[in-house]
This record gives sequence, C-alpha cells and structure tokens, in this order.
Amino acid sequence: MRILGIDPGTLVCGYGAIDVGPRGDAVYVECGVLTANKKQPLADRLGELARSLVDVITELRPVAVAVEDAFFSVNARSALALAHARGVALAVAGLAGLPVHSYTPAAVKSTVTGRGRASKEQVAHMVSMLMGLRSMPRSDAADALAVALTHARWVARQRALEEPAR
Amino acid sequence: MRILGIDPGTLVCGYGAIDVGPRGDAVYVECGVLTANKKQPLADRLGELARSLVDVITELRPVAVAVEDAFFSVNARSALALAHARGVALAVAGLAGLPVHSYTPAAVKSTVTGRGRASKEQVAHMVSMLMGLRSMPRSDAADALAVALTHARWVARQRALEEPAR
Repeated sequence: MRILGIDPGTLVCGYGAIDVGPRGDAVYVECGVLTANKKQPLADRLGELARSLVDVITELRPVAVAVEDAFFSVNARSALALAHARGVALAVAGLAGLPVHSYTPAAVKSTVTGRGRASKEQVAHMVSMLMGLRSMPRSDAADALAVALTHARWVARQRALEEPAR
Repeated sequence: MRILGIDPGTLVCGYGAIDVGPRGDAVYVECGVLTANKKQPLADRLGELARSLVDVITELRPVAVAVEDAFFSVNARSALALAHARGVALAVAGLAGLPVHSYTPAAVKSTVTGRGRASKEQVAHMVSMLMGLRSMPRSDAADALAVALTHARWVARQRALEEPAR
C-alpha cells in the first residue's frame, strides 16, 4: 500500500510517498517540495497548493494520507498560517476520497529518531538513512516522509495485532 | 459588482452575496449556510466544504470574495479549526481566480452596527435591516453578509477617492 505524507506550509509544502510491503517494510517512492511565490496573495498561494497536491495525488495514487497534528507553535501567526495550508491538504485528500491519519510531531520524531524532541537535521538524516537515499532530502520533504513512515509503523502494528497468535 | 462574503467554519460555513451598484448601494442577492456532518472525519468535511463553495461560486458568479481575518480566539483549538476552514475557502477563491479581501472582526462589526464589539445578535439584526430581509438570517449567514457589506463600503470609498473633485 502506498502512503503519502504531507508537511503543509503556505510557502513550502513537503510531500513524500512510500510503499509499505506485507511485512511492514517501507520502500521509498518519491519526495519533493511544492513552493509558492511569496509575493502572491495568500488565496492564490493556497489555490496553487491545492492544484499541486491534486497533481501529486493523481500521479502517485496513494491509498492513505498522513499529516502532523495541528498544534500551537511559539509563533501564533505561523501556527495559523500552517493551519490554513493544512486545511487545504486535508480538503484535497478528502475530495480524493483518501483516509487521513494524523500524528503528533513528537510521535513522528520518535518514530524516525527514537527521540520525541529531535532536531530537524536529525529527522532528515534518519529519514535518508531509513529510506536508503543517496542525498539528504530537503527538510520539508524529509518531514513528509517521516510522517508517512510513522503511519507505516502504525499499519504494521495493526496488522500484527490482527494476525492470529502463532 | 457582486461580492461574496464567507464566514468559514468546519461545521457551519456561512455565505452571503450582495450586488454593489455604481453609487455604492448594496442589494441583497442570497445567503445561506453550508453544514457538515459532525461525525465525519475533518478531511471529509473540509473536502465537502470545498465542493460546496465551488458550487456557490459557480452559481453566484461573484467578482470578489470577502472574509474575516484569521485571529486568535479565547479557544486556541477553535481558532485552529477555523483557520483550516478559512484555508479551504481561500484556496477555492484562489482557484476560481477571485481576489480575496480580508477584514478584522472589529471592522466588520463596526461597519454594520457602528460598534466594533457588537454582539452576534446585533450584527444579524442590523444586517437584516440594512438588506431589507423579512426574516433574520442565521448568525453565520449574517456574518457572511456583514463582511461582504464591509468590502462594499471599502469599494465605495475607493470609488469616491478616484472620482475627480466636484
């Protein structure tokens, strides 16, 4: 099954797709960032984000989407901006009929680094290790892969719970 | 020119359209609320909101959209939820190529009631007076008309400024 992780933002939005095998093993598919023109009005940027995410979903054909929970950062202004972009990402997933799974930032960091308060660099480093990437992805793309991996682990756990005891 | 006001929400989203004449006089066109099923996941609700707003814009053909600014309410959780819905509304307007104008809640209340801290009831009452409505619209629809009226006043002022002095 293919999982698309999204790290929403009004200027830079990361995305990352992985395939999860029957044993819960995750294989890298693709990652990247969608960037917006800072000078454009917010509505135009969000519209462009919606269009780009529709393209990404049409091309990669995931069966589920994973995003981080909305939360209050130190900067209230940036938390609100992020919630705008997150709303757009959720709406696009909803319109495509895809289930959306949400994880706390701490759960995502903990999954890929073993530490809930890891730095962005540590997350990017571990994601590129886990996915066997030759070069380090951009931080937003790495975050998107990290949340996809977090959902992959949840899927693997669910499968293990559903399997009959041997 | 037709202005569409939107009062975004993840459960109830108000909309209201008015026509502004050459002298800045505003004529009521339509208002209503888009409601979502509380039991549905947030992504589905936001997707449905996007679809409904596309329908409203396709039907009413506004040339501009007006919304209230994003702000931090007492309840941080509801502020984030509202920002999600606002992001969807802005994205739909942006995709339709419509300019979006944003006003503070105080500016909207002040325009329709003369008081920046008016109650919701007072706003609904004054909106139905100003628009000559027979019955009081729902609070969310009234708020949408109020922000559309705020933009109409801004348009009228701009026109007055641009006119040569007589």
